[in-house]
Amino acid sequence: MEDRVNAFVPGPRAHASGKPGGPLAGLNFAVKDLFDVAGVPTGGGNHDWAKYNAVPERHSWAVQTLLDAGADLIGKTITDEVSLGILGENPFDGTPINTAAPERVPGGSSSGSAAAVAAGLCDTALGTDTGGSVRVPSSFCGLYGIRPTHGRVDTAGMMPQAPSSDTTGWFAREAKTFARVSTVMLGEAPAALPTKLVIATDAFGFADPEVAEALQPMVARLKRIVGEAREDLMAPQGLSVWSRAQRTLQPVEAWQTFQPWVEATNPRMAFSVAAGLLNGAQMPASERSWAALMRQEARARLRHLLPPGTILCLPTTPFPGPLRGLPTPQLQPLRDRINCLCAQGGLTGSPQVSLPGATVDGAPVGLSIIGGRGTDAALIAVALAMEEAA
Amino acid sequence: MEDRVNAFVPGPRAHASGKPGGPLAGLNFAVKDLFDVAGVPTGGGNHDWAKYNAVPERHSWAVQTLLDAGADLIGKTITDEVSLGILGENPFDGTPINTAAPERVPGGSSSGSAAAVAAGLCDTALGTDTGGSVRVPSSFCGLYGIRPTHGRVDTAGMMPQAPSSDTTGWFAREAKTFARVSTVMLGEAPAALPTKLVIATDAFGFADPEVAEALQPMVARLKRIVGEAREDLMAPQGLSVWSRAQRTLQPVEAWQTFQPWVEATNPRMAFSVAAGLLNGAQMPASERSWAALMRQEARARLRHLLPPGTILCLPTTPFPGPLRGLPTPQLQPLRDRINCLCAQGGLTGSPQVSLPGATVDGAPVGLSIIGGRGTDAALIAVALAMEEAA
Repeated sequence: MEDRVNAFVPGPRAHASGKPGGPLAGLNFAVKDLFDVAGVPTGGGNHDWAKYNAVPERHSWAVQTLLDAGADLIGKTITDEVSLGILGENPFDGTPINTAAPERVPGGSSSGSAAAVAAGLCDTALGTDTGGSVRVPSSFCGLYGIRPTHGRVDTAGMMPQAPSSDTTGWFAREAKTFARVSTVMLGEAPAALPTKLVIATDAFGFADPEVAEALQPMVARLKRIVGEAREDLMAPQGLSVWSRAQRTLQPVEAWQTFQPWVEATNPRMAFSVAAGLLNGAQMPASERSWAALMRQEARARLRHLLPPGTILCLPTTPFPGPLRGLPTPQLQPLRDRINCLCAQGGLTGSPQVSLPGATVDGAPVGLSIIGGRGTDAALIAVALAMEEAA
Repeated sequence: MEDRVNAFVPGPRAHASGKPGGPLAGLNFAVKDLFDVAGVPTGGGNHDWAKYNAVPERHSWAVQTLLDAGADLIGKTITDEVSLGILGENPFDGTPINTAAPERVPGGSSSGSAAAVAAGLCDTALGTDTGGSVRVPSSFCGLYGIRPTHGRVDTAGMMPQAPSSDTTGWFAREAKTFARVSTVMLGEAPAALPTKLVIATDAFGFADPEVAEALQPMVARLKRIVGEAREDLMAPQGLSVWSRAQRTLQPVEAWQTFQPWVEATNPRMAFSVAAGLLNGAQMPASERSWAALMRQEARARLRHLLPPGTILCLPTTPFPGPLRGLPTPQLQPLRDRINCLCAQGGLTGSPQVSLPGATVDGAPVGLSIIGGRGTDAALIAVALAMEEAA
């Protein structure tokens, strides 16, 4: 299979056949190069990572689970360096092409997985989401994508970044495929539809006006599916305040994760990645202790907002994918804005699904739904209903 | 010519013949890959530098000067990334081998130039010295090396780092060759020998005791050559205080130099190099203004200490080359100590020559002589006299 969108890591393609007769028989999948595949070096998107880390002897839990369910593994995909990136630009392996908007970035860090699914090179693909790494490429590439409840899907054999925020997620082009894979990964079939919808007015107000506008038909459809709807603030303390807390906690944990590798090998990395790690290394204790308290407030807010049967909707990203190759100073404000709409994931651990269906200037942008912790299967049911009602 | 010490940058070897009949006829030279050679990309020790910078159309002043004097150019040599390094370990092109002590680093950032001369692959080689990048590899590889008076040797076509400290220097195995090249580069023949010697007790006390001990025979020889000798402090404010000032000013200027490249291209670099640049970017204004004042004090001190006819001697480095491949946390304290004996160069602009002739555990370590600004040719005369008296 030709990799016409630069989604797969260079070199021999990792491959494994699924068990015959499983629920995912007939599907194939790709896996972000942060997941262990037995006998294949885990590259991590940085050419100095595999030198320091042994070739894994067993599959990661997520890969083994999909293989056991009958799906065939067809390759490992490009990721932002050690998952530190949200746009999908990797200076070592290149930027995967976003089929839905080729002049724009695919989003990251699960860039190659999203690009491969969007291009039809595979049915589904595994990604990771710490600060938005499944949700953002889902939005930019026009895919279904899930960040499950934190702690629900086993992350064994997945390269960690910030363990208190890390999750395993996946992508699909179609809700039916998305639901089949989700049933296996969650160990639960799509659950009953929620009956109440909260429209996050702060998040819609924070997105580009054209994005908020473009998502309105999807919001209307969602209202019809769910029934009762009302408007409220997701983050009364401020989206930027939640973001600030997440951008304090996550880099501190990322530095704890990567410090031994950095200190042992002085690896080459893009300047922006090194800057991010140093930001974590230098974080003042006063910021860290405040951020831990704000995390508790954010969790309390979502518990209050999302009792059983209620979901919340918001734009997945404030804009569609930015143009490829923008200079660094233009990228940082974009990353900052994306984080304001994604921070709740890592901060609260609530499950979130990004739904495709809207475009701005021809480029996709996703509508997200969030439920209370553990309600992942209800969000899958909404994805199915949204596709059926489209 | 086989590059058995990994001194030259990979790829086709840059080559140019010197003008026939010049004073350097019969000599050949290599040039650190920070100097422009017409028609050859200037690599700068970082694989993302040449992508951003045009291929030079003319030779740098230093290369042109050596060619005009009749020396043949035989290649470009490995450098620490964009001259930011003092040990000579480059993750892109590898670490040149120090012939005099193969298990130890060659020193940097002019690592390949020093390694090529030490291995006998060429007669002389151009380097740059901002914070010690000629002096340190001279010491570790057992070579003659000069950091000229700041501003004396034209740096046109040399990649800048911190312009108020940057200089063009050169290496040789023998004092006679060193003097021939110096006469051309300085435009001045070796001058009269100095008549007074100051032994920098603070610097000898700061070096490893075995280094101070190993240098005593050279110091004795130097006393005989110069005549009158006395002991004094080089840096009464503290070697570590001078070092702190230089390590404030130099990274700030380096960030100013490289910021446009970094922001335009987000280049890959070793983590330690990115950390150094960010250190400059984040330097508080209060530190910067203090460091500028300490620079004035340091200049006044050397003017006071080094009237015409007087030179000062000190160990070039506090120890011989450290072992290759040490982990990052062990390297930083070593870099810090090296800087305490090298900071005076960038801080004051005084000329300094490192002389070979001592070893510790079989590894070379150099003795340095420093003169007042503009007295470079007298230091060359001392180098000749030291070799003759050996």
